[in-house]
Amino acid sequence: MMRTRPLKVALLGCGVVGSEVARIMTTHADDLTARVGAPVELAGVAVRRPDRVREGIAPELVTTDATALVKRGDIDVVVEVIGGIEPARGLITTAFEHGASVVSANKALLAQDGAALHAAAEEHGRDLYYEAAVAGAIPLIRPLRESLAGDKINRVMGIVNGTTNFILDKMDSSGAGYQEALDEATALGYAEADPTADVEGFDAAAKAAILAGIAFHTRVRLDDVYREGMTEVTAADFASAKEMGCTIKLLAICERAEDGASVTARVHPAMIPLSHPLASVRGAYNAVFVESDAAGQLMFYGPGAGGSPTASAVLGDLVAVCRNRLSGTTGPGESAYAALPVSPMGDVVTRYHISLDVADKPGVLAQVATVFAEHGVSIDTVRQSGKDGEASLVVVTHRASDAALTGTVEALRKLDTVRGVASIMRVEGE
Amino acid sequence: MMRTRPLKVALLGCGVVGSEVARIMTTHADDLTARVGAPVELAGVAVRRPDRVREGIAPELVTTDATALVKRGDIDVVVEVIGGIEPARGLITTAFEHGASVVSANKALLAQDGAALHAAAEEHGRDLYYEAAVAGAIPLIRPLRESLAGDKINRVMGIVNGTTNFILDKMDSSGAGYQEALDEATALGYAEADPTADVEGFDAAAKAAILAGIAFHTRVRLDDVYREGMTEVTAADFASAKEMGCTIKLLAICERAEDGASVTARVHPAMIPLSHPLASVRGAYNAVFVESDAAGQLMFYGPGAGGSPTASAVLGDLVAVCRNRLSGTTGPGESAYAALPVSPMGDVVTRYHISLDVADKPGVLAQVATVFAEHGVSIDTVRQSGKDGEASLVVVTHRASDAALTGTVEALRKLDTVRGVASIMRVEGE
Repeated sequence: MMRTRPLKVALLGCGVVGSEVARIMTTHADDLTARVGAPVELAGVAVRRPDRVREGIAPELVTTDATALVKRGDIDVVVEVIGGIEPARGLITTAFEHGASVVSANKALLAQDGAALHAAAEEHGRDLYYEAAVAGAIPLIRPLRESLAGDKINRVMGIVNGTTNFILDKMDSSGAGYQEALDEATALGYAEADPTADVEGFDAAAKAAILAGIAFHTRVRLDDVYREGMTEVTAADFASAKEMGCTIKLLAICERAEDGASVTARVHPAMIPLSHPLASVRGAYNAVFVESDAAGQLMFYGPGAGGSPTASAVLGDLVAVCRNRLSGTTGPGESAYAALPVSPMGDVVTRYHISLDVADKPGVLAQVATVFAEHGVSIDTVRQSGKDGEASLVVVTHRASDAALTGTVEALRKLDTVRGVASIMRVEGE
Repeated sequence: MMRTRPLKVALLGCGVVGSEVARIMTTHADDLTARVGAPVELAGVAVRRPDRVREGIAPELVTTDATALVKRGDIDVVVEVIGGIEPARGLITTAFEHGASVVSANKALLAQDGAALHAAAEEHGRDLYYEAAVAGAIPLIRPLRESLAGDKINRVMGIVNGTTNFILDKMDSSGAGYQEALDEATALGYAEADPTADVEGFDAAAKAAILAGIAFHTRVRLDDVYREGMTEVTAADFASAKEMGCTIKLLAICERAEDGASVTARVHPAMIPLSHPLASVRGAYNAVFVESDAAGQLMFYGPGAGGSPTASAVLGDLVAVCRNRLSGTTGPGESAYAALPVSPMGDVVTRYHISLDVADKPGVLAQVATVFAEHGVSIDTVRQSGKDGEASLVVVTHRASDAALTGTVEALRKLDTVRGVASIMRVEGE
């Protein structure tokens, strides 16, 4: 198997992840050679700021001209760890055109343009791998795409954003409010200065689109993913969750409808029972729960971000892509043959926990219960507590469609006796 | 990609797993065709008892002559779910000689003869896949072999036998003794009539050998795995574990030595802290915890046995092997280039929990402590309790080699004041 010509790798981006990829390629060169069957050589590193000292990277490899690097023609694999849409998209396309395979960690790009990039890879007979784009070091894309290739996946539900899990875990364990927990996450480096992408669920939604596409062999675009952030989760919500034996997590949920004819993908905070394996995922860790026909329930757990973990996923892909090149083949490409329709959020069926501020007088519960009944939403439990003429009513429903629940809440708001809807939270994992 | 000639599959064995493989191949035929790129056809099923009714399998496919089936020459993939050493070994070798690739679920055979079978596969340019051999449906071999191919795995620690986990979980939750819990496991079908392979750790040891081989790129034979069953774990041990904030699990542990120059593999019951992710693995579930340089800590969780879960793993391999055949390539074969020595159990370094029955008189603790010190085993905590002239002494050590601990215990047994060594249990996961 061993041959002398090394496989040449171009690295685009040399930040937290890229520098770790370069470091491991150097320090573990012998292992990589043995595992690939040929030496793997770092042939160029494209950076924005060439003046920054990059330990262990020969200065002559560093360039600011990423386009020229991917056009060189002798590059076997381009590793893209720049992130964002452009210039990453153009560079990847150019890489395929010039004969290279690509390993990417770019969830935003894959979620938005995965289909076009896969098509470009296939047109040129090259690989596009991106294990690092979802849940960092956790092997997830390969298991879904390959290990479960003979099974039928019905549901993928996961904690795929470490920043928000850190914040929610903090709120749960300390009773802190959202802002206080966010401040701590920022101070400790778990949250970025602008945390929008994380706390508003954009990051998780991109991952949900990628996961749903692979799990259901169906193209799922970022726009197909319902998204609700976690900035409005309060300490009171956590108190309510505790009363139900639950905690709150920001979940990415990809589901096949019960009739199998459509799929949904969504990101929102939800209550889950403490007994559920996802409930005990602490700090910035990620975990993804997969349910399939034959395998049953599987869970994959690990660090969802960080330079080293992400580099581990990138390097696993790099070895696979290098092996494919040596044997003149490619791995599995996009699989979208099922082409199931993606249903809107209104079609999602789940349970709900609703907190209402109501007038403390006889007949209110009857009025509220009537509204639920009129919208076909069956009530599981009601808890009423009151003082000083004001009362709160907590309703937990049986399974109902999101559309029916939305209609219910609209009607409730119109009741004179309902002063306000304090919170609505979905209940998952039961 | 689509072509007309179907890929032909021979199924050896049609018991709990085999019948499920055949069923899914039939009911999910269209999905398999789409995922492989060509139809996948069940071309023959070798069984011992041809008279048994096999729903959904055309009678003309059934044969008792497995050898003739694998020799047919038109078989692309042989799926071996017979188990045991012979005739499985001979049939797999014959399959390679006649041009077929092989998917096997046979942990005993892989652990004993993996190197020879891999060599046969390579000689004939064929694949040997066996995801189902370890931890049933949990994708584990592919992630270790491929996803972590660019990383350095330092430790694999797992619950890889569902029967023993069911028994230990029962003992933990109900306070039952070993025999009572075993009886319940047998009654519920979790334990076989002869549970030896499970409770004495033979099954887990085979899996440990396979996992260690893959994780460390080193041949690890079944004989290299230290093995201790869990039949002597008592309700008293669980009580002691609880006092330490621990539970007891039968663990398969594969470790790289701290200097990186050797590896060890072992199976034995051990105390682990309740805070460790493996502690909350309930019932017959399996879970494997992996620690690597770059990825950090990962965990894989799911059903470790059963017809459907095992069939899911077999079918995942079947799709991969079929895809390889279509593209005229093979997946990663045996990787044993590191060829690290496998150290004996005496070299393993861990912590220990030792219960001693001692005379209740002054000076006993000093005597005991001296013995530990003479053997270089440092004590972490001691708990002494006594009544009626008899006392018990519970010692928890710092990390020490198994050889040092064995020497310590031998010397303790010789002390007049030590009436007996009630139990010795390793403490892991801290």
